[in-house]
Amino acid sequence: MDRVNRTAHPFDKSRLEALLNRRFFYAPAFEIYGGVAGLYDYGPPGSSLQANIIAEWRRHFIVEDHMLELDTTIMTPAPVFETSGHVARFADWMVKDEKTGDVLRADHLVKNVLQARLAGDLEARGFAADKIKEDEKKKKKKIKTTAVQLPDEVVKEYESILAQLDNYSGPELGQLCRSHDIRNPDTGNQVGEPQQFNLMFASSIGPTGQHPGFLRPETAQGHFLNFSRLLEFNNGRIPFASAQIGKSFRNEISPRAGLLRVREFTMGEIEHYVDPENKSHVRFAEVRHIVLPLLNRFVQESGSTQVTKMSIGAAVDKGIVANETLGYFLARIHLFLLKIGVDPRRLRFRQHMANEMAHYATDCWDAEIQNSSGWTECVGCADRAAYDLSVHSARTGHPLVVRQALKEPIVTEREVPEFNKKVLGKTLGRDAGLVQRVVGEMSQEELVRLKGELSQGSATIYADEKQIALTPELLTIERKTFKQSIREFIPNVIEPSFGFGRILYSLLEHSFWCREQDVERGVLSLPPLVAPTKVLIVPLSAKEEFDPLIEEVSMKLRRCGIFSRVDDSNTSIGKRYARNDELGTPYGVTLDFASLQNRTMTLRERDTTDQLIGSIDDVISVIMGLVHGALTWEDACTRLKAYGGVQAIE
Amino acid sequence: MDRVNRTAHPFDKSRLEALLNRRFFYAPAFEIYGGVAGLYDYGPPGSSLQANIIAEWRRHFIVEDHMLELDTTIMTPAPVFETSGHVARFADWMVKDEKTGDVLRADHLVKNVLQARLAGDLEARGFAADKIKEDEKKKKKKIKTTAVQLPDEVVKEYESILAQLDNYSGPELGQLCRSHDIRNPDTGNQVGEPQQFNLMFASSIGPTGQHPGFLRPETAQGHFLNFSRLLEFNNGRIPFASAQIGKSFRNEISPRAGLLRVREFTMGEIEHYVDPENKSHVRFAEVRHIVLPLLNRFVQESGSTQVTKMSIGAAVDKGIVANETLGYFLARIHLFLLKIGVDPRRLRFRQHMANEMAHYATDCWDAEIQNSSGWTECVGCADRAAYDLSVHSARTGHPLVVRQALKEPIVTEREVPEFNKKVLGKTLGRDAGLVQRVVGEMSQEELVRLKGELSQGSATIYADEKQIALTPELLTIERKTFKQSIREFIPNVIEPSFGFGRILYSLLEHSFWCREQDVERGVLSLPPLVAPTKVLIVPLSAKEEFDPLIEEVSMKLRRCGIFSRVDDSNTSIGKRYARNDELGTPYGVTLDFASLQNRTMTLRERDTTDQLIGSIDDVISVIMGLVHGALTWEDACTRLKAYGGVQAIE
Repeated sequence: MDRVNRTAHPFDKSRLEALLNRRFFYAPAFEIYGGVAGLYDYGPPGSSLQANIIAEWRRHFIVEDHMLELDTTIMTPAPVFETSGHVARFADWMVKDEKTGDVLRADHLVKNVLQARLAGDLEARGFAADKIKEDEKKKKKKIKTTAVQLPDEVVKEYESILAQLDNYSGPELGQLCRSHDIRNPDTGNQVGEPQQFNLMFASSIGPTGQHPGFLRPETAQGHFLNFSRLLEFNNGRIPFASAQIGKSFRNEISPRAGLLRVREFTMGEIEHYVDPENKSHVRFAEVRHIVLPLLNRFVQESGSTQVTKMSIGAAVDKGIVANETLGYFLARIHLFLLKIGVDPRRLRFRQHMANEMAHYATDCWDAEIQNSSGWTECVGCADRAAYDLSVHSARTGHPLVVRQALKEPIVTEREVPEFNKKVLGKTLGRDAGLVQRVVGEMSQEELVRLKGELSQGSATIYADEKQIALTPELLTIERKTFKQSIREFIPNVIEPSFGFGRILYSLLEHSFWCREQDVERGVLSLPPLVAPTKVLIVPLSAKEEFDPLIEEVSMKLRRCGIFSRVDDSNTSIGKRYARNDELGTPYGVTLDFASLQNRTMTLRERDTTDQLIGSIDDVISVIMGLVHGALTWEDACTRLKAYGGVQAIE
Repeated sequence: MDRVNRTAHPFDKSRLEALLNRRFFYAPAFEIYGGVAGLYDYGPPGSSLQANIIAEWRRHFIVEDHMLELDTTIMTPAPVFETSGHVARFADWMVKDEKTGDVLRADHLVKNVLQARLAGDLEARGFAADKIKEDEKKKKKKIKTTAVQLPDEVVKEYESILAQLDNYSGPELGQLCRSHDIRNPDTGNQVGEPQQFNLMFASSIGPTGQHPGFLRPETAQGHFLNFSRLLEFNNGRIPFASAQIGKSFRNEISPRAGLLRVREFTMGEIEHYVDPENKSHVRFAEVRHIVLPLLNRFVQESGSTQVTKMSIGAAVDKGIVANETLGYFLARIHLFLLKIGVDPRRLRFRQHMANEMAHYATDCWDAEIQNSSGWTECVGCADRAAYDLSVHSARTGHPLVVRQALKEPIVTEREVPEFNKKVLGKTLGRDAGLVQRVVGEMSQEELVRLKGELSQGSATIYADEKQIALTPELLTIERKTFKQSIREFIPNVIEPSFGFGRILYSLLEHSFWCREQDVERGVLSLPPLVAPTKVLIVPLSAKEEFDPLIEEVSMKLRRCGIFSRVDDSNTSIGKRYARNDELGTPYGVTLDFASLQNRTMTLRERDTTDQLIGSIDDVISVIMGLVHGALTWEDACTRLKAYGGVQAIE
């Protein structure tokens, strides 16, 4: 479809937002009550788009890898998050305007102010305005840019701060505010010292008010607490994965970025349990060749954001990605995002820096999608190691472990001291305990030496600056055989975690363009796989004689599992198609008087606005091929005739 | 399948619960932390069963009737529920044990104590123990039944109280406790006066703590607040329906009934918006003949629970069910519940009594499913009238109305007074306002009379015990023509509301039985439509040579959209089939050495344990027919040969 020029008009976020609002993809929740920051409702097309993305996620991950699905509760008693560390550490740094008391997120404040200064610098240096990132200009709460040139070394310093922004602690952010005179841009006032704000919504369970609870900020703990049951369901074997789709909640400090930062969101989380001594993946060979754009932590810590393209096989071989299981998921995430329509040129995998990592993670890579707000974390892929299972085991006394029968028992021999405690006490008095401790802590080599001395009749050991004589009556040392037939261990957890709202919004940006001949005519080029509606049925007129035909086409499509909608509103066909271009509907069929006479139907493709014609059944069969991915539009053009009818509607 | 005796063993709830727990259909959430009453996690089979029920719900309701799907937030700012009435009225009556402070739900206390006394009475009268309802005996927190005979009139009184239990107010429940000496059965202590406890979980939005919020107790308000957007999406036309599937929360006082009373649950809600002057339904003719078991409010208020079977057409015609739209949904609910496997003999539709109705409803019918806890509300179908849209309109000033262009404008003529305000003020002074008010409130008849008098030159009116003379200079009255071309109204809302957890649990009870020859062998006869897994693939041995065949069968089934699982554990085939009978898997295929040689496969049906044999492709094609409902097992038996092989596993 190269003949369609999708870049005739530069991306205009306000146009996209107007479209999404007009067509009710989503809208601020409680809008008629003035809305609440960070809460959004999905309307019919947004709900369908989300449902389609989630359905594909279920097929791509859960079905494909036989994962065990869960549905655990959102409301969680406090002790669970005390153990997991969320009560103490799941917090952001906030600062207060010293005069108004307005609350700002500290890292966002630093970022926004420094970016505005850099933009002002560019302007002062006479660079074209389009060099300044669109998102900085379009933000509703944008910071006013003043064209002030900065010294070159200050520009470098700001860029370096921004590159490692996620790496700063709260006190460091406070230091940055002071040393760079960063103030609340809305008021010009100074801000106070950064303080931690816990992001979990708190509530209370039961009528007495005595049982504090939190809304989960992630679904993961629900998996971990059920680990023993899951393991049993999987016949005691690992590796395996559990998966869950559900809502989580984060009481963000001052969310202003639309769907990208919300207080309630739908996520998909996979917890893949592996043997800590063997993180290989049985299907890694299938993805080995896939080339990913990687941005590792060393590159970032050097102040750069240069991506390296590399096959995941090579990345694992070189130790850039820690293990095959992590690598397998990065590749599968990549495939999933491309399949639903994310632009591969605007996707990268970024490794977390040391300070940035969640408290439970030992390594973490984010799939970041570029949109008008910059590179946005949409999928996190963390190695949580044994952290969660260990802490819950310790707190509850319920062992969250795997027990494996060893194929061959491990047989070991060891020197073991045995004390004649009665004689020992009588002979040594208060030193008896000291001797037991010191001997008990001896290495195998030391025990062998002591055994040799005792076999000579006596030995001397040194303890607490004392010299103590020992004889074979006091203790003997014998070589014993040990046989271990069960290996018990806490598995490690690799966790791919998806924020569907962020993916959905980024996808909408990637899909949006305006027709070359008319910037007012927006199109969402969503792939048929995820498009809210696959086919629009457009009767030429609202006359009742079309009803049986509409019903027939609608039912035949439904039988093929294809979701269609009828638009029999009283506007022109052109307007109806334009409306559905905005809704991302890939195909439209028109029923006209020829349909009544000859049982023909025209088929329109959204992006090209090409129209084909054929018998109703042929058109439906072509649509089936198109929607299920068996045919391209080029194929369709060879199967059906081009339609040159008088529908001067484009 | 009459040759299968499903009732050889009486239903045993503890056996079913053990099975559901063992196979991880669901389990108490936070079990390793001791659990929290009313919170449950769904494991893999429970999640799949729920997902399949919901998928069918989406097809049966949303797709079939082109409903507009929504996904609105759970976290809700307080003003919304203040307006909707939930802050003031969404509460249950609780009583406190006067000595221990334990909290009990007042109506449940009355019910449990009186039922226990009635059971004791039956026992004393020498009735067999099985006359006493299973659920009363098996409850973990059961009330000890003492065999004490009651006077006949007391029995009658208790039965009458129980029949209208939902009809009592809090003070009335308190009165019942006093007059019948109802005490906390755990302690024998008296209980205090019933007090209201609001069932919404409270939280706070944002970092300042200044914005109270609640977790929604129903999804409905999210629909209503978006009404204007939905109406616009539907091209301004009604009737239409919005639909939403999502979690809601109720902080139940002391939930003890498993999945039947939980604090967090998944619901499906439909809000169907109709013209209050026309609640007919365009598809009512399609369901008119369907016979439903109805229990109306008059029967209940007379103290009876006798069900009447009646076609929904007749019920609407007779005014038993208020209108076609309500009737349409009752019939559709009935069809849905039967389709997923609910026993029609254990389903009834019960109308709410006056005091029982939610504060927003004008009429309400519950689909109640009978299970071991009695008749359980699983679907509510309420006519909320214009309540919600009206109160939100009034509070926000945002009109939630429909504007319809009238086909023919309504032309009316009215007498309209017009005041000459200057002269009026000059002449009458402080009485000018009084005159305007009094004349403004006059009926058309009074205006006509006044007009007549004025045409004579002067008139007198009486106001505030004054007599005031009027002349044509002060006011004139003219007949004017008004043309109304738009009709504006607040639609009424019919709301079918489904609790999926209750449906799922009742379905599990209806599906459960034990094999005649061995009570230890439980079976869940879930219909293929909702069964968590459709096909179990059982390789005879774990040898690697089976792997390609397993992969082939698994992939062919996946391509037909059929979800299968492989069980290659090291236990006998009989044990593997028994495990899958417990999981409700309807079909099993066995790959043995004959499969390797001849490409044959056996097919086993769960309920009969019949086995058939055929080529792999024939068996798969039969399975496809069975799972998609095109074939019965009897059909399958004519398509494939009976298998008499040596698998003495049943």
